Amino acid sequence: MQVEDIHSAVDAGSKAVDLSNVLLLLKHYNSVRSFTESLCTSLVPEDYVIQSMSDVSPTKWHLAHTSWFFETFILKPHLDEYTPFHPRFAFLFNSYYVQAGERHCRAQRGLLSRPTVDDVYQYRAYVDEHMDILLMNVDDDLYSVLAPLVEIGIHHEQQHQELMVTDIKHVFSINPLYPVFKKYQAGFKGQVPSFEWITYQEGLFDIGHKGGDFGYDNEFPEHRSFVHAFELASRLITNREYIEFMEDGGYERPELWLSEGWATVQDNGWNAPLYWEKSDGEWHSFTLSGFLPVDLDEPVCHVSLFEADAFARWAGSRLPTEQEWEIAAAQASLNGNYVEAGFYRPVRPQNNTPRHTNVPLQLFGDAWQWTQSQYSPYPGYKPAEGALGEYNGKFMCNQFVLRGASCATSHTHSRLTYRNFFPPDARWQFTGIRLAK
Amino acid sequence: MQVEDIHSAVDAGSKAVDLSNVLLLLKHYNSVRSFTESLCTSLVPEDYVIQSMSDVSPTKWHLAHTSWFFETFILKPHLDEYTPFHPRFAFLFNSYYVQAGERHCRAQRGLLSRPTVDDVYQYRAYVDEHMDILLMNVDDDLYSVLAPLVEIGIHHEQQHQELMVTDIKHVFSINPLYPVFKKYQAGFKGQVPSFEWITYQEGLFDIGHKGGDFGYDNEFPEHRSFVHAFELASRLITNREYIEFMEDGGYERPELWLSEGWATVQDNGWNAPLYWEKSDGEWHSFTLSGFLPVDLDEPVCHVSLFEADAFARWAGSRLPTEQEWEIAAAQASLNGNYVEAGFYRPVRPQNNTPRHTNVPLQLFGDAWQWTQSQYSPYPGYKPAEGALGEYNGKFMCNQFVLRGASCATSHTHSRLTYRNFFPPDARWQFTGIRLAK
Amino acid sequence: MQVEDIHSAVDAGSKAVDLSNVLLLLKHYNSVRSFTESLCTSLVPEDYVIQSMSDVSPTKWHLAHTSWFFETFILKPHLDEYTPFHPRFAFLFNSYYVQAGERHCRAQRGLLSRPTVDDVYQYRAYVDEHMDILLMNVDDDLYSVLAPLVEIGIHHEQQHQELMVTDIKHVFSINPLYPVFKKYQAGFKGQVPSFEWITYQEGLFDIGHKGGDFGYDNEFPEHRSFVHAFELASRLITNREYIEFMEDGGYERPELWLSEGWATVQDNGWNAPLYWEKSDGEWHSFTLSGFLPVDLDEPVCHVSLFEADAFARWAGSRLPTEQEWEIAAAQASLNGNYVEAGFYRPVRPQNNTPRHTNVPLQLFGDAWQWTQSQYSPYPGYKPAEGALGEYNGKFMCNQFVLRGASCATSHTHSRLTYRNFFPPDARWQFTGIRLAK
Amino acid sequence: MQVEDIHSAVDAGSKAVDLSNVLLLLKHYNSVRSFTESLCTSLVPEDYVIQSMSDVSPTKWHLAHTSWFFETFILKPHLDEYTPFHPRFAFLFNSYYVQAGERHCRAQRGLLSRPTVDDVYQYRAYVDEHMDILLMNVDDDLYSVLAPLVEIGIHHEQQHQELMVTDIKHVFSINPLYPVFKKYQAGFKGQVPSFEWITYQEGLFDIGHKGGDFGYDNEFPEHRSFVHAFELASRLITNREYIEFMEDGGYERPELWLSEGWATVQDNGWNAPLYWEKSDGEWHSFTLSGFLPVDLDEPVCHVSLFEADAFARWAGSRLPTEQEWEIAAAQASLNGNYVEAGFYRPVRPQNNTPRHTNVPLQLFGDAWQWTQSQYSPYPGYKPAEGALGEYNGKFMCNQFVLRGASCATSHTHSRLTYRNFFPPDARWQFTGIRLAK
Repeated sequence: MQVEDIHSAVDAGSKAVDLSNVLLLLKHYNSVRSFTESLCTSLVPEDYVIQSMSDVSPTKWHLAHTSWFFETFILKPHLDEYTPFHPRFAFLFNSYYVQAGERHCRAQRGLLSRPTVDDVYQYRAYVDEHMDILLMNVDDDLYSVLAPLVEIGIHHEQQHQELMVTDIKHVFSINPLYPVFKKYQAGFKGQVPSFEWITYQEGLFDIGHKGGDFGYDNEFPEHRSFVHAFELASRLITNREYIEFMEDGGYERPELWLSEGWATVQDNGWNAPLYWEKSDGEWHSFTLSGFLPVDLDEPVCHVSLFEADAFARWAGSRLPTEQEWEIAAAQASLNGNYVEAGFYRPVRPQNNTPRHTNVPLQLFGDAWQWTQSQYSPYPGYKPAEGALGEYNGKFMCNQFVLRGASCATSHTHSRLTYRNFFPPDARWQFTGIRLAK
Repeated sequence: MQVEDIHSAVDAGSKAVDLSNVLLLLKHYNSVRSFTESLCTSLVPEDYVIQSMSDVSPTKWHLAHTSWFFETFILKPHLDEYTPFHPRFAFLFNSYYVQAGERHCRAQRGLLSRPTVDDVYQYRAYVDEHMDILLMNVDDDLYSVLAPLVEIGIHHEQQHQELMVTDIKHVFSINPLYPVFKKYQAGFKGQVPSFEWITYQEGLFDIGHKGGDFGYDNEFPEHRSFVHAFELASRLITNREYIEFMEDGGYERPELWLSEGWATVQDNGWNAPLYWEKSDGEWHSFTLSGFLPVDLDEPVCHVSLFEADAFARWAGSRLPTEQEWEIAAAQASLNGNYVEAGFYRPVRPQNNTPRHTNVPLQLFGDAWQWTQSQYSPYPGYKPAEGALGEYNGKFMCNQFVLRGASCATSHTHSRLTYRNFFPPDARWQFTGIRLAK
Repeated sequence: MQVEDIHSAVDAGSKAVDLSNVLLLLKHYNSVRSFTESLCTSLVPEDYVIQSMSDVSPTKWHLAHTSWFFETFILKPHLDEYTPFHPRFAFLFNSYYVQAGERHCRAQRGLLSRPTVDDVYQYRAYVDEHMDILLMNVDDDLYSVLAPLVEIGIHHEQQHQELMVTDIKHVFSINPLYPVFKKYQAGFKGQVPSFEWITYQEGLFDIGHKGGDFGYDNEFPEHRSFVHAFELASRLITNREYIEFMEDGGYERPELWLSEGWATVQDNGWNAPLYWEKSDGEWHSFTLSGFLPVDLDEPVCHVSLFEADAFARWAGSRLPTEQEWEIAAAQASLNGNYVEAGFYRPVRPQNNTPRHTNVPLQLFGDAWQWTQSQYSPYPGYKPAEGALGEYNGKFMCNQFVLRGASCATSHTHSRLTYRNFFPPDARWQFTGIRLAK
Repeated sequence: MQVEDIHSAVDAGSKAVDLSNVLLLLKHYNSVRSFTESLCTSLVPEDYVIQSMSDVSPTKWHLAHTSWFFETFILKPHLDEYTPFHPRFAFLFNSYYVQAGERHCRAQRGLLSRPTVDDVYQYRAYVDEHMDILLMNVDDDLYSVLAPLVEIGIHHEQQHQELMVTDIKHVFSINPLYPVFKKYQAGFKGQVPSFEWITYQEGLFDIGHKGGDFGYDNEFPEHRSFVHAFELASRLITNREYIEFMEDGGYERPELWLSEGWATVQDNGWNAPLYWEKSDGEWHSFTLSGFLPVDLDEPVCHVSLFEADAFARWAGSRLPTEQEWEIAAAQASLNGNYVEAGFYRPVRPQNNTPRHTNVPLQLFGDAWQWTQSQYSPYPGYKPAEGALGEYNGKFMCNQFVLRGASCATSHTHSRLTYRNFFPPDARWQFTGIRLAK
């Protein structure tokens, strides 16, 4: 999701203001802000600067942009006599200001050596310090205004945490020295659970966010939808299964592919997921723990919608709609292999995880799951008001919805109704395959 | 719709074979084939050769490709000892054979001076003659096989008739001598009917093709869909209304546009619909009857999905979903301003057309109507079997559905459940705007 | 040479005006104009329209542009009350008028179906008729003004004759039906003369055009040049010799190539001269007489400067400078295989052609010969005055000089000091290889 | 000059081997190597990483590549049991190894965060240490082999010193924070000397390197050349004079430009030299000392050949040939404004510099001077043997020769016969204008 451009408004709901909430909010704020920086412990200054392709932003930029968000939408309008940290940072780290030339600008983020990494950390500290001052002196009225903004800022920062991980993976992957971001940590042992189809009956279902808690505006309103009977796979597709597709000529058979997908395969010479390379006759892939043999029992990831869709066609099935996915996931817990687990890759389900009858495994964590649903507004959708909602809905064209969460997502950022979306050729996110029929 | 690549299978249904049907079928075949050629009466040989952009095919190519279709799928497999007209034509006019390099090939259609236009007309006559021989000697079993194939071929040819019109319009438009395809014929006089919202209640509706008659596979199966209450505009948006949008800065306000739409506007310098140009301070447009002042009361056309969507946002409304459109159109007659009317542009509704309560005007004919629905499979969709269905569903990515029909569509090609689709930046078709909310 | 943009002025010299000259001039004019049209006898209208790549112009355009030249520079300024044939032709066939956007315009010449071929022939007749009126009524003063202009126009038309031949060859070459422009005519039989080095001593030489006769301004002024001792090949390189280079890995060895040349080879996948294709294990090439096996004894042509230079390096020699070429050719006759011979390809030297001691064969006709000289002004060079000279010298950047003439050049257009020039990657002219060391 | 690819052989000459020469050589080596590092004193690690356009290399790359040169051509072949610093550095910093894909690779130099800047400095120290060991233990025979190689390595490093300066200027220029590389240091005061034409007689001249001292192979052999009488400007063109050209519509008049130059102006929207920007109605330029008003009396620089040529045409003159330049410069001293002066920009001639009769000012230092000579081999030129000479002469296509030296060149790197060369659109070097006629 192009998070830098989608700073969606909350569903305000009706919240009783309570003074102890201030401390809770500040604690949440500080913990998320700290977690962002903890993701950088293995980086040297040179690493923070690189933009390895236009979708990727330098780590330095993520660190600054998330701070700019709090500075711009909270400190400047609400903290009396607040002086911005640097007069040019609003230009450098604002993705709105240059909307007419956004792409150019975005593509040049990797050309800036200054501000230095040190400068950016000072910027973060400066913003945090003033957030603390502001929140510790808030009255009830202001709190009710600020709390939802801070909450958006926190979720915005969590989205960028995921991007920091996926982006540094791409940065390292193109370096012939194969830097290691995190020492390899073995996944769970044990057999991959058998692949089963779980059946769901047709009916009218409530889809979307019910309100109350936080959600982006694209998850609203909750609405009724008629969904025909369907079946959903009990787990994600593994690397072993994906290699079968590859060995069966998957990347050479145009009849398996969407027309644009086939053109993409041809133009880019794709013959395997992103980061895969054959070495000594065996498939390896670049991971955040280095260049390693592909573990056949782990879920496949770094596939595009095109590849997920071709795989499904090859397997005689299809991708689920986002409604189907949500109906199935409504019964599941949010537990899973998130970024906090420290694997930084999808892994096998934990030993002996009992699967509850009719509840698929691996819905949350591990890998985002491509759906066949093109990203569209829900019936009755209203973009949020004001600058924060300015860009809502602008991306409802040539994007497909992904559901779930990944091994780079924060556990506390995950929820049932979350609608992630990317163009159908995107592969650098942790994106995997769940089948339906 | 990329008709050359979508030769969809019929819904076979259950038809009683009747010998007089052969003559009816042949009559239909001959009349559609003749109509194709009648569209070329004002062309000189040089006109048939030009491919003015990659989406456009030369007239010569359309004439040959539609004949190749009958030769390949009917004559070769079913007429004993049939000798193809020319051994290389299968290569030249077959869009399947070179699937791996389709775009390149397609882009080079305008570089072929041979076969000549005369050769191509001889090819058509040769195919027609052998179709006559084949059909006049058919037995019952073969008829039941051939009839649906002929019917597909006829619909395929009708799609190409529309493309011939839209393509030659583009070819002529870039010629500074402004050739005239058809002498200008005044539209209906009288006032534009007032713009009204027609209200529809929520409910479960049957959407898609019921079977029985001909339909492309993407219209199947009929299925239930829950649609929330909505309102639909009683008529198409006029040039006058569109100019209001333009004069209100429509093309300069990024907040009105989808993100990709805004990028497209910037990259291409769009500031008006395709074919529009300001001359002596007044908007003119290139039409098939020459370069003429824009008639403010006629429906706007040659707008992309991006422009239709931006206009709708500016007007405080939105585009309909294809389900909404179909629910409303289910009550309308198929009459309208089709290609047979000879206008070759959208016109005002006929004088004093009484609008039936709750039935919008201009649903069929005049201009295809962009919907907000991205082109996706219906629940339970199955691509047709075999070569004719090889490419079904391949375009369900980055295309939006259009409903209705246009002033370049044949009346007999039009039907309620027809799903046309084009990429969101396509403008050279006769595509207009109907609002919803 | 980009003739449409270089309409160079003559060296006026001092000519006695003689009334019988008018008739001679008119005869020359008419004969060159007729010859242009005679080159088109095998073409159908569709052939005249095609622009198969941006360097190529449609035959129709050449026919009209050469007429526009006479209309613009002679009829409009000098024939009282002359009415141009069509008010828009000046725009369509003028390459000066749109100088700021030349490339775009040029690239779109193949998108114009109108004016028709018939229209263009009428345009030619109209211009010829008025040229006849003008010249038959000229007085002495006007004659002295017009004669050099007519002469330029004739030479300009002859340049376009060569381009018409090279351009239609390219147009036909990309057509899978392989149209034939001229029935195959066998070349001379007999052995290829042996390859010898002819030695020239160092010294100060007069280089360039002495004046008196016609010449383009880039051939002036005659000037002294010190040239070191050198050796020049006694004949052109044959296809057999070029294939040796190819089979010795010529196209796969970067050390043989100029840096830009190697990049060009890689980017375009070159592995043989233009128009060559291996068929049944044997090299064939597309010729104006169809797709034929390569005659090993004929001179290689359709090679770029890059290929000629790489061949020379492989052969342990180099290309000549243009001064070296001119010193050697000063002793040769202008006879050769020109377009009038009707071969439309380089051929073997005529049986038993005795080679005069120290005079190389095939200097004129057959194939233009790449030199290592980058196209630069001669010392003391002055561009011609006025519109006709406006663009002189504008191409003295990234072009290499070619000397001699080709099988598509008119005999009467050929002269010792002619400086043809093309970018180093151009291959669609009849360009061959003569070595030096 | 694309120094990384042109590591030209020396003219060995005949040198008496003398043991004290070892110490002198080592001293020279150490002093040049130190000077390279001294150029980086104002940089932070992030600065070393950036590649702001494909012509630019990151500072880190320059530091490593120059070390790789000594490692590869001297240490590996000549120091027993030498272990390379890192097994992958030969791949990363070798511009030969990947010759087939050079451009891609080159364009990705800015995407490598590792090795870190610290690693690279350790690499330099390691190489220096082993160079010391090798040279301090050399015998006479080996010395005679190594001395010329070390000398090439030193000159190679000096070329990269100049590139480091021009490249970091470009890197800083695109940063909105305008970093300062070196504090501003005022130039000499006093009037600009008057512009005069100095006359030279025609004759036969010896051009090129006589041997004895170091020279790149493209400067050899010395050869005779006949040069016509010419006049050369007594000094460089100033910013004031260049602004006159600009204000006279220089960038809007196609008739002043080479055809490719005009296309370049249009495509890139050039309207002033590189780094210039109008601010508050006055021309400023980005310098290594920040964004400053243009000093009207300093020589113009950062102009392309196209601009220099257009300026000359506008001024009614032309650029000199390289032979003309060399004839004039043969009488001048090598003193000038080199990098050691610390200005990092062209400046006015020192107060009261007396100009010797017939000796132009500013021939060396300040700014390289574009000539009209396209880069070609001298008569009798032979590329050096072996790997170091592999690429000599490969760039003799679409490059123009520049003579002199610039404010970023080392004084000891400058010599009369030096032939620098760049493509005609290159502007990021310190390139200026000297006129001839």
